Amino acid sequence: MRPTTEQLEILQRGASEILKLDELEKKLDRGKPLHVKAGFDPTAPDLHLGHTVLLTKMRQFQELGHRVTFLIGDFTGMIGDPSGKNATRPTLTREEVQANAETYAQQVFKVLDRERTQIDFNSRWMGDMDAAGLIRLASQYTVARMLERDDFKKRYADERPIAIHEFLYPIVQGYDSVAMKADVELGGTDQKFNLLVGRTLQQALGQEPQIVLTTPLLEGTDGVQKMSKSLDNYIGIAEPAEEMFGKLMSISDELMWRYFELLSLRPTAELAALKDAVADGMNPRDAKFELCLELVGRYHSKDAAAAAQSAFQSRFAQGQLPEDLPTTALSCPADGLAIGHIIKQAGLAGSTSEALRLVDQGAVRVDGERISDRQRRLPAGSEFVVQVGKRRVARVALAAE
Amino acid sequence: MRPTTEQLEILQRGASEILKLDELEKKLDRGKPLHVKAGFDPTAPDLHLGHTVLLTKMRQFQELGHRVTFLIGDFTGMIGDPSGKNATRPTLTREEVQANAETYAQQVFKVLDRERTQIDFNSRWMGDMDAAGLIRLASQYTVARMLERDDFKKRYADERPIAIHEFLYPIVQGYDSVAMKADVELGGTDQKFNLLVGRTLQQALGQEPQIVLTTPLLEGTDGVQKMSKSLDNYIGIAEPAEEMFGKLMSISDELMWRYFELLSLRPTAELAALKDAVADGMNPRDAKFELCLELVGRYHSKDAAAAAQSAFQSRFAQGQLPEDLPTTALSCPADGLAIGHIIKQAGLAGSTSEALRLVDQGAVRVDGERISDRQRRLPAGSEFVVQVGKRRVARVALAAE
Repeated sequence: MRPTTEQLEILQRGASEILKLDELEKKLDRGKPLHVKAGFDPTAPDLHLGHTVLLTKMRQFQELGHRVTFLIGDFTGMIGDPSGKNATRPTLTREEVQANAETYAQQVFKVLDRERTQIDFNSRWMGDMDAAGLIRLASQYTVARMLERDDFKKRYADERPIAIHEFLYPIVQGYDSVAMKADVELGGTDQKFNLLVGRTLQQALGQEPQIVLTTPLLEGTDGVQKMSKSLDNYIGIAEPAEEMFGKLMSISDELMWRYFELLSLRPTAELAALKDAVADGMNPRDAKFELCLELVGRYHSKDAAAAAQSAFQSRFAQGQLPEDLPTTALSCPADGLAIGHIIKQAGLAGSTSEALRLVDQGAVRVDGERISDRQRRLPAGSEFVVQVGKRRVARVALAAE
Repeated sequence: MRPTTEQLEILQRGASEILKLDELEKKLDRGKPLHVKAGFDPTAPDLHLGHTVLLTKMRQFQELGHRVTFLIGDFTGMIGDPSGKNATRPTLTREEVQANAETYAQQVFKVLDRERTQIDFNSRWMGDMDAAGLIRLASQYTVARMLERDDFKKRYADERPIAIHEFLYPIVQGYDSVAMKADVELGGTDQKFNLLVGRTLQQALGQEPQIVLTTPLLEGTDGVQKMSKSLDNYIGIAEPAEEMFGKLMSISDELMWRYFELLSLRPTAELAALKDAVADGMNPRDAKFELCLELVGRYHSKDAAAAAQSAFQSRFAQGQLPEDLPTTALSCPADGLAIGHIIKQAGLAGSTSEALRLVDQGAVRVDGERISDRQRRLPAGSEFVVQVGKRRVARVALAAE
């Protein structure tokens, strides 16, 4: 196995928190493969890139020779929300869980190494546990500590009900780590509390406590809110190659580096080099193409990614838009023409202020790249396609005044 | 079955609280035997009269034709306190539980009607419950409500730990009522919260909620603190007849009426008549003899009770104390001599103040009756035996000055 310092550098990349780093170091120093666990909800098997931050970290562990278990929390899934108050937590049958697991498998092996992944189900041990066993487990954790969990604390303070079984689910999740003898558990930052319960229970039951490694929540294509289906700022990993390519090209340069850090499997040194190149004048679009090719290539294929790139370029850059799309020539000052004026003068908005509102709304693209900066100026001599929403489009040529 | 109003009168006697009275009325109106439950801890089968308040209420239900289950909480007993922090909650084996149950049975059938009592164990249903079942149950109760239980509230406020399994025990106890389809659950006032959990769970699971009837805690022979072994103010139901008789004779007149109300199976009207007779000049000692004869008769036999009475009387009243016990003649004012002076002058204490301290400590008896009133005066012309503790004793004759 690779030296501990090298492993740590890779494992720390993009991680929110590692508890505790010195313990991880000690475990790695033993030179044996670690057992790495990550739990997944059996109800939501339709993954987007946000979910793959965690999978990417799992993959990094695999590349370093560690053993990874993709744990499906079917035990709690089969109980659902027995109080019936949470409609989003339906009770799943064993068949539904199995079907979801297969859907998961189809998706996650685009990131994980199939050979080094074990898919497991916590019903395997929890299904056999009796009420007495659960009571014994529950004795290892206090009410006060449980009420420190952010959402519980808030609900208790607001006098919104917390059903007692909600205190048992973190205990069950913690016990999973005991049953699996996990060395490391991965999860989103919002899972930190539950992951720490695993540490507590392992210690109480005489095991070496697991390392908790949390990964950040990925921002969606808007660059602001966390990626989520309900916010419609997500990129699903089952989306068609061209769709995925187009959505990725639409993110800001800043977000591109974030995606590189959290989603790319390229070595950190390569990313640093790419960043330097952009700082030295390389067109950020070309760096973004690299990101698109890697990610679309992963979820489809290299060929499909290359084809998506050609389609993207020909559609936006080479002007293969509607055959009869006329070119609007606008006269342009030496320091370029501001985006608001371009939209107005090309007839895509009734006024400059309307044009700027459209920019604010994220409705404006230039050669497919979303423009969010009202101050953006395009240089004299350039020619490009401007789109406003889906239907208003114009080819513009800026002639120096 | 007897009319509801008549039954209610008997069942309300001495009860602390009935929740809810109108529901009990409705249940009784149906004219069918009710299923009455009372739970007992499997760890402490050595009963004293304090425990029999509840048993007496159970017996009253039996006399009225209802079905009574003496439920031994062996499920939780066999778990003990798994956090290991509570040494008073040892883990019991199945054999120990069985042995304790037999000890219980020997004792409780002195009060309960054996023919109409079912002894049951909650391991019968809880032993089969799996962790999922317990989670479903726990979903029916909220953390906030559980934290309203007095001891939990106090411990939480004081930042003393409450282990999560402690929240599950009331749930288990409540589920017992569901499994048994209990119509009524009896318990001490300190059990009220747990009994109400039974109501909640029954309602949540579609049953008619049980009636909760709480009985007061019985004061010990000191008349102040609740009867308990550790305070040494108890009368064990397995104590020898003479011992029990003597201890009962030592209680105050006021406490005698309390014991009558809570422990006697005599009809309420008879007690009222006895009370009237004492008010009209009957010697309260004779009323106390009645109480002693009933209770000692119950735990031993009528003959044994009568023999204990004879022994008591000959020992204390007829002076059959050590043959050579000298009579100390004391001169006495017309309005009697105060107890402190009697003790001092009979040589049973070094000073009057020491004598009064001994009265305060409950160490002083006159003809076997414990004296707790420092002001107590004994009349001129009387003759009696004064005891201080176990060893200091004197026969005193008060001669008018």
